[in-house]
Parts: sequence; structure tokens; C-alpha cells
Amino acid sequence: MTIKPVPAHEPPYYTVVFTSVRPDGAEGYGETAQRMEDLVKEVPGFLGYESAKTPGGLAITVGYFRDEHSIATWQQNLQHQAAQRRGRAEWYDSYTVHVGKVERSYAFERQ
Amino acid sequence: MTIKPVPAHEPPYYTVVFTSVRPDGAEGYGETAQRMEDLVKEVPGFLGYESAKTPGGLAITVGYFRDEHSIATWQQNLQHQAAQRRGRAEWYDSYTVHVGKVERSYAFERQ
Repeated sequence: MTIKPVPAHEPPYYTVVFTSVRPDGAEGYGETAQRMEDLVKEVPGFLGYESAKTPGGLAITVGYFRDEHSIATWQQNLQHQAAQRRGRAEWYDSYTVHVGKVERSYAFERQ
Repeated sequence: MTIKPVPAHEPPYYTVVFTSVRPDGAEGYGETAQRMEDLVKEVPGFLGYESAKTPGGLAITVGYFRDEHSIATWQQNLQHQAAQRRGRAEWYDSYTVHVGKVERSYAFERQ
């Protein structure tokens, strides 16, 4: 597998850091997560996302967006809102969201 | 294990999103990571950090800081700089850093 991180875009852009505590194996979670991934890619100004979860640990997902408008478009998506409601009802013990305006970014790649 | 996510602080504060591609089992990585964790906790304005790595996947670490000054203090730490140099030389295939000023944050916890 080749891992392709979201690159350092030209600021300003936005990071949406979503951390969550979620028991493994919740019914319906995987299908919904895949559907949301397909949907968010259609949002103008969506720059990419990354997700990681240490087994038994906190899940961290970072969404990258060009501007506030693109974040709002995603938040107003009705299927996304329905998934969020189901997440609060069924999947997540807790989650936290931090929306930040990126002021600088940089990258390293081994030659 | 009780997982304690970094809470939604009162904005403004900063998120430093560090994503990296790192082969597992690199010599010396674990000890240095633990030493950096101990050191960063001494930085005034450091609010916490979270890290997750899906096995075989991208690692995501998010550091939370009160202001630019606290980020600069950490970046100027000589042991941190030495660890960064070793990371580029030995541990990381690639990494990306996105520094964002948090404009809003919110949290959910199951009752």
C-alpha cells in the first residue's frame, strides 16, 4: 500500500480535527463512513481527509477544506446530518471537533 | 483503558496537525517519542496532544497550544530540534505539518 498524505496546501485553508471514542465493531458504521467519504469528495473546496485509529485507542480524522464556505456546504449536507445523528445515538461515546484556519504548513519527503 | 481526548478549549488556540509515514519498529523511535512527550508537557501554553496510527497506515498527531508563543517555545527546544533531525535522517519517509488557529470547537459526550 502506498500512503498518500494530504499535502501542505497554500494557506489559508482549514483543518477540521475530529477526535472520537468509538467502540469497535459498531453495526452500520463502516458502510456509513464509506458513504460519507464518497459524498464529501463532491464538496467544492474539499481538499482531502486522513483518518487513523490505534487499536483500542482514540480515532483522529482530519478534514481539509479550502474555506468556511466549503465546510458549511458539508455541514449542511442532509445525509451527513443524518449520519451525525446516528453517530451520536449509536456509535460514539464522545467526540470533539476543532476547526482551525491554517496559517502555515510545510512538508518533508525523503529523497 | 480510559481514553481522555483533549477537550474543546475556548478559542482562540492552535492545532498543530502532524501527519507522517513511518515504517514500524524503527530503532530509538519509541524512547525519543516518550522523551518528547515528557518535554512538551513542560511548555507553558501546551494544552495537550493526541496521536493515532492505524497499523500499516498514516500516523496522525495533533498538538494543542494556547498561542503562537507556546508553539515557538516548543520549536526552539534544542532536544526537540535534535529529535526532528534524527526523524528526518532515520524514521520518517515523509511528514506534513499544518498549523491552524482554532476559530471554533465543540464536543459531544454520551450521557
